[in-house]
Amino acid sequence: MAFTEIEYGVTDRIATVTLKRPERLNAFTFTMRGELIEAFDRADADDDVRAVVVTGAGRAFCAGADLSGGGGTFGHLGERPGEGETVDGAPRDGGGTVALRVARSLKPVIGAINGPAVGVGVTMTLPMDVRLASETARFGFVFARRGIVTEAASSWFLPRIVGIAQAMEWAATGRVFPASEALEGRLVSRVYPQEELLPAAYALAREIADNTSAVSVAAVRRLMWSGLSASSPWEAHAADSRLMAELGGAADAAEGVTAFLDKRQADFPMRVSRDLPPGLPSWPDNPYGV
Amino acid sequence: MAFTEIEYGVTDRIATVTLKRPERLNAFTFTMRGELIEAFDRADADDDVRAVVVTGAGRAFCAGADLSGGGGTFGHLGERPGEGETVDGAPRDGGGTVALRVARSLKPVIGAINGPAVGVGVTMTLPMDVRLASETARFGFVFARRGIVTEAASSWFLPRIVGIAQAMEWAATGRVFPASEALEGRLVSRVYPQEELLPAAYALAREIADNTSAVSVAAVRRLMWSGLSASSPWEAHAADSRLMAELGGAADAAEGVTAFLDKRQADFPMRVSRDLPPGLPSWPDNPYGV
Amino acid sequence: MAFTEIEYGVTDRIATVTLKRPERLNAFTFTMRGELIEAFDRADADDDVRAVVVTGAGRAFCAGADLSGGGGTFGHLGERPGEGETVDGAPRDGGGTVALRVARSLKPVIGAINGPAVGVGVTMTLPMDVRLASETARFGFVFARRGIVTEAASSWFLPRIVGIAQAMEWAATGRVFPASEALEGRLVSRVYPQEELLPAAYALAREIADNTSAVSVAAVRRLMWSGLSASSPWEAHAADSRLMAELGGAADAAEGVTAFLDKRQADFPMRVSRDLPPGLPSWPDNPYGV
Repeated sequence: MAFTEIEYGVTDRIATVTLKRPERLNAFTFTMRGELIEAFDRADADDDVRAVVVTGAGRAFCAGADLSGGGGTFGHLGERPGEGETVDGAPRDGGGTVALRVARSLKPVIGAINGPAVGVGVTMTLPMDVRLASETARFGFVFARRGIVTEAASSWFLPRIVGIAQAMEWAATGRVFPASEALEGRLVSRVYPQEELLPAAYALAREIADNTSAVSVAAVRRLMWSGLSASSPWEAHAADSRLMAELGGAADAAEGVTAFLDKRQADFPMRVSRDLPPGLPSWPDNPYGV
Repeated sequence: MAFTEIEYGVTDRIATVTLKRPERLNAFTFTMRGELIEAFDRADADDDVRAVVVTGAGRAFCAGADLSGGGGTFGHLGERPGEGETVDGAPRDGGGTVALRVARSLKPVIGAINGPAVGVGVTMTLPMDVRLASETARFGFVFARRGIVTEAASSWFLPRIVGIAQAMEWAATGRVFPASEALEGRLVSRVYPQEELLPAAYALAREIADNTSAVSVAAVRRLMWSGLSASSPWEAHAADSRLMAELGGAADAAEGVTAFLDKRQADFPMRVSRDLPPGLPSWPDNPYGV
Repeated sequence: MAFTEIEYGVTDRIATVTLKRPERLNAFTFTMRGELIEAFDRADADDDVRAVVVTGAGRAFCAGADLSGGGGTFGHLGERPGEGETVDGAPRDGGGTVALRVARSLKPVIGAINGPAVGVGVTMTLPMDVRLASETARFGFVFARRGIVTEAASSWFLPRIVGIAQAMEWAATGRVFPASEALEGRLVSRVYPQEELLPAAYALAREIADNTSAVSVAAVRRLMWSGLSASSPWEAHAADSRLMAELGGAADAAEGVTAFLDKRQADFPMRVSRDLPPGLPSWPDNPYGV
């Protein structure tokens, strides 16, 4: 599969996914949806990828759904080839298929939001682990201004990230707001001058890649997100116990502790492609059997 | 039903609910409980209401339960006419009946906290979408100082709004604290000089009323709050998919997208009273069959 | 049971639990695990204890698991006498047994983090109600740097306390970070100069002990934490209703309201050891039958 609306590359064990329709402010299409899902499949399958950075080409991150179809844009969902998948009887929301794929990534995902991120352009970033923004970023959960609803499972993610009061203020007004308001409201973790954004994203990815076990990070990512969903800390305790039993005696734990005691950098031998522990929680859980 | 302990009015598509027993610092009574529920029923049924502002008459917002019954105040719950409804065998907590009604409001609710909000006076505001406060506001989850417990389902709402550490510090000490501490702890979104509080609340309500589809906002409100409860983002994805299928081809979406492309204000034709989509999530879910 | 690796004492109705292996930076052992559980059992059983402060002896809070076993440290879990308890087929994670015990404490728990709190040294503090830190504290969720996973049910607690983005940044990097970053990220509520840390922790404990009903506080603590787990505010409403019915007519409510009206300090007669209401929610819920 050759990508036409995104770019995908791996350098120094960090994958970069670039939304690439700069002439359309990287507006989201059905094609981009499929390519994003494919990109995360590749990153998960490639042991050389320790983290994923997602950014936009040109001056925007993603301006939202491509509205070149005019007033009927949202009235023809599920009619294109390959869009036939349904959930609960309805065609699956496209932004949600991307969001749920990002959610179950085995590699940590860093959003480097370099400009406007509006509609699905911002909701697609919510299942990423960390969002960093440039001073030129702008955000908008504009759905109620278009007569539709917050999508991409953002009603699950957004109130857990920024709190329900902030989520409702942004979603009910549909306001477009600057990076400073996103930072204040904890939608993004840090804001940088434009030219420092990608370096900061890569520095964070590198901090992960250089210091940690890839298998541990995959397991921790699944633990944390599934833990956020669990109804009792006992569920986390059971998962912890399984994973500590499976990984505690494995090669990465031996190397990790030995390297620490030797005061040297660890060289972890285990690989995500072959060494994921059987106790890894599955998440997000799909009660709909799609 | 004529109101005696609250005031209800609608101006410029914004409803105002005013707690009105200023001589008693708007202390909460069984009568006020019923009137608040009725006021939210009216706001939901009236398409001319796009948002609800709740405030207090005089210098207080609400000083908590009316304690004029003395030491026996909390010992005679469920004994007044109409209070016979029970949940799980116990008379339903009065603050909770209000809180659960506010929670399922179809219109966004803005608390304009103009003075002391103590006990049920603060817990009733937790299911509101946004809380704004004046510099003269004071807050207290004082229940443990009275020998009772945090009520109005605040054990569900409060730790999700301010985090469990802040929730426990306030609930375990029963401390009365100023607006600045409420802001720092994220109980309120912003603090204003007294004379700027209501204008700020109305400006926020107007931002919603002037720019968004009422049906979208009702659906978004239900999505966000039910999403905060959902055990998996797949539940949000299923609801999104249903609602996007139902609303994406409807009149508000056509108008919303067309107006955006035409760079003009949208004039949304759909009405909450008749056009709510069947896929609207019900929330909060009552597992007790009351 | 005489304690050998912790110290336990009660002064002025406040229990202090001190991790006490200062020569090993209070590193966590199987013995310490058992002693911590026993200390919380004592605090719960003793009506003279109104709050618990947990701190470390010497310059550390707790440096994490004792790694003197070398690279095999995490490979021999469940092999020591008394460690045979399993959950879901795996030996129970040791940090988790402490965390779940702290979680169901009937007394509020204040962490006074006086120095490095790394690995289980920080995860054990997450089910405490409030964490205060000294300027010399440092924190690290270093598990992925050792080839293991975040434990002590921290995947349940941490994203609910600091948000999933902050949780993932700390857990995926395994970074060791200063008190200022912990404060910014809301892991701790306040940071103090070293000599002011314990006085601040005791002042907070005293605010609880001097002003509130012990039975109310036990019930409120259980309500808040179980409310954070509940799938609907109706569950909180049902619990509130039961507890208001049981406590509203009891002696502490009569005294609490009367003392308030009389503008005097309340003298609550009820005792946790004998007067806990039957409607007290059980939490955390164990679906594994251990």
